Amino acid sequence: MFKLPLAVMVAAACICTSSLAGDLKTAADLRDKALSDPTAWSILESLTTEVGARSIGSPAYDRAREWGVAKLTALGFSNVHVETFAKPAWRRGAESAEVIAPFPQKLAIIGLGNSLPTPKKSIEAEVVVLKSYAELLAAPQSAFKGKIVLVNQPMVRTEDGSGYGAAVRARYGDSEAAKRGALAYLLRSVSTSQSRTPHTGTSDGPGPHIPAAALGVPDADLLEHMAARGPVRIRLNLASTTDPKSVCWNISGEIKGSEKPDEVIVIGGHLDSWDPGTGAIDDGAGVAITTAAAYLIGALPKHPRRTIRVVLFGSEENGGSNIAYLEAHKGELAHIVLASEADLGADRALKLELPEGAVKAPEFAILPTLLAPLKIIVASTAPGYAGSDIESLQGAGVPVFSFHQDASRYFDYHHSADDTLAIVDAAGLNQNVAAWASTLYLLADSAIDFRAQPAN
Amino acid sequence: MFKLPLAVMVAAACICTSSLAGDLKTAADLRDKALSDPTAWSILESLTTEVGARSIGSPAYDRAREWGVAKLTALGFSNVHVETFAKPAWRRGAESAEVIAPFPQKLAIIGLGNSLPTPKKSIEAEVVVLKSYAELLAAPQSAFKGKIVLVNQPMVRTEDGSGYGAAVRARYGDSEAAKRGALAYLLRSVSTSQSRTPHTGTSDGPGPHIPAAALGVPDADLLEHMAARGPVRIRLNLASTTDPKSVCWNISGEIKGSEKPDEVIVIGGHLDSWDPGTGAIDDGAGVAITTAAAYLIGALPKHPRRTIRVVLFGSEENGGSNIAYLEAHKGELAHIVLASEADLGADRALKLELPEGAVKAPEFAILPTLLAPLKIIVASTAPGYAGSDIESLQGAGVPVFSFHQDASRYFDYHHSADDTLAIVDAAGLNQNVAAWASTLYLLADSAIDFRAQPAN
Repeated sequence: MFKLPLAVMVAAACICTSSLAGDLKTAADLRDKALSDPTAWSILESLTTEVGARSIGSPAYDRAREWGVAKLTALGFSNVHVETFAKPAWRRGAESAEVIAPFPQKLAIIGLGNSLPTPKKSIEAEVVVLKSYAELLAAPQSAFKGKIVLVNQPMVRTEDGSGYGAAVRARYGDSEAAKRGALAYLLRSVSTSQSRTPHTGTSDGPGPHIPAAALGVPDADLLEHMAARGPVRIRLNLASTTDPKSVCWNISGEIKGSEKPDEVIVIGGHLDSWDPGTGAIDDGAGVAITTAAAYLIGALPKHPRRTIRVVLFGSEENGGSNIAYLEAHKGELAHIVLASEADLGADRALKLELPEGAVKAPEFAILPTLLAPLKIIVASTAPGYAGSDIESLQGAGVPVFSFHQDASRYFDYHHSADDTLAIVDAAGLNQNVAAWASTLYLLADSAIDFRAQPAN
Repeated sequence: MFKLPLAVMVAAACICTSSLAGDLKTAADLRDKALSDPTAWSILESLTTEVGARSIGSPAYDRAREWGVAKLTALGFSNVHVETFAKPAWRRGAESAEVIAPFPQKLAIIGLGNSLPTPKKSIEAEVVVLKSYAELLAAPQSAFKGKIVLVNQPMVRTEDGSGYGAAVRARYGDSEAAKRGALAYLLRSVSTSQSRTPHTGTSDGPGPHIPAAALGVPDADLLEHMAARGPVRIRLNLASTTDPKSVCWNISGEIKGSEKPDEVIVIGGHLDSWDPGTGAIDDGAGVAITTAAAYLIGALPKHPRRTIRVVLFGSEENGGSNIAYLEAHKGELAHIVLASEADLGADRALKLELPEGAVKAPEFAILPTLLAPLKIIVASTAPGYAGSDIESLQGAGVPVFSFHQDASRYFDYHHSADDTLAIVDAAGLNQNVAAWASTLYLLADSAIDFRAQPAN
């Protein structure tokens, strides 16, 4: 058997004895209003339609900045401003790959972010197919001299997205292949889909570097099937350029706290996206969920005690916005009472993890009651992770909370051309807004310290 | 209430009273063997790996011919030969489309077969978005002068594939748009998927012709969302060439009948495919199912009475193989006792429609017993359609039979890059082989005339 955590038992008591009142009534009203509120969908439709794909260094990235400032301003946020920082921007060029022999076929391919370009006349070489990343790591020095290495390791579909962590290591494998003499590095797209559409992402090995790209899932299998018959030669073209000092940004807007405006809860999503889709689930959804939740709280007759700050992070996919944010806000770290990012699409939230200082606080024992109608459970432990854009804040001691979403479908689309508005579940999107708005209201209206309390 | 057809009642009686014997025993053994036989999968894996996409006029099309002859020969078919004919072959060139203003974005696009190319410097014009094909037909003369027309009519997902017939009319709409002054014609991909991958197909309007292409489903919606905000200008490039007299072919191989070798049942699939995928479900699956079924029958100690002829049709996607086949076989029409084509992918068969001469024949009352373990029902009426490559034969009086497959998923992938081995359900593929092999054996071993019998 397993034990019910204290919070659940307290909540069960509340259900039996209390009527909704005070904070809980406001939070429940926010929750119910959010379920049919059009704001999040409208934000997401606006972003994907008027901006579309917006990778750093692209013209659309500049339009995304303008869009973000205009949107937060139009929604009534205060103190809307842009914080800039510089970082290298990798830009995709023309890309192609094909089997030359023995069975000429075109291959669906997409270069990995930070990949080196191929020489102008392309790379032509035999491909070596490995069935797992572990096989690459186990291979001896010079094992792949003059070859192109393909790691064809499938990703496992899981509700919590943990299949991604296991599979994505292979995306950082170019240096391991290079060390073993490979001319170029290919991997099966880190994806749970059977679509031919390839999935990109960064390739961040420590060096040395070689050209690196992801194949469509069926294309990786195709090469494995061909290689089972004998040597397979392929031709690879990957053009790209890098701007060593591109201007990046984080955009910020606030719902000012009514009593403790200097105590800040930082939430948000990232506004940059990969280039093949329109960045709807990664991470237009997170932008829409957190912006709409804060907007609904801002529209209340009285703001909660603390300030809610929505940050539209500007360089998650290529990294940098978390460090830039920490650098720019070192002076107010003690006043950032809590942080969280929404960056796992628009499918339903399943579980809330509260910050350590709130896990056992009687004040938050009402949360299971509040979230039960949304089919969200409240965990008995604090989160280990709450979004990559706030990792630096978290590392600097800022407490975090996290809504775990159903990630079953997320990696069918993530980082691919299929990340568009078409695959967004509007009901799931609003369920997330309802969860964020109601919970965030209670957290912002609280006076307790979310930092871990000494054991009593 | 609805009445049970006679066949079902007879079959029910058989289940209670008979033990399997004679023909039925052989057919049931074929059925059971086919469920775990590797032949169909092996054919499909070989075709998609060693040939891949194989549209008429391409180098791979020639390799498909060699593959087909070699495969039928290796499987022990007799009288393996190629029948050639000439027809124009449309060949895709470079293609692109993008929104120029007000929200620059790239669009996922694929030219329709037989589309005219755009002028060298591309077409740039405002797009007019229509929500249905009926809207186009209802528009007055000159309604779209100087514009690009987009028909954004969604396809309905149905188990029997009837959603396709309703939606595909729009794919032949270029002439209707041209008559109303349009410079180019776009349509939402005829697809049930939400993927950005566009779906091609022929554009066969009667003329006049203009450049015509399909947009990814999300891209069609994107243009509709943009157009709701004001005028949208797009740029369209479609390069293509046409070889007016390309050499096409049908490939034929036989399992000779043991007693009536001149009476022939023609079955098969089409070996040509569209170019973006590897032609796994359209129609590598039909090739694999019918070839494997005939091969299993050919491996019996004694062949059935009549000859089974497998035809790998060579130009279904662009038309022509059905007419060529009829022309080449006019002299033996009276001896072609039955025909059927498998061309709806590899998902499970749900229903068998027998030829009119067999629907009420007591000899075939055993079929429901035979097919029940495969979860296939037997219809009480003859088919109206049994494959486009045998339409000419059917029109010339050849009786047909048909297995209806579950088409729920088929149009997610059909005519797109996603038509690969990755989306083939191996169990469904073999269920079809089991259905074809067992039923075909009984039909080929029968002596009855499948042509409609005069009413008694």
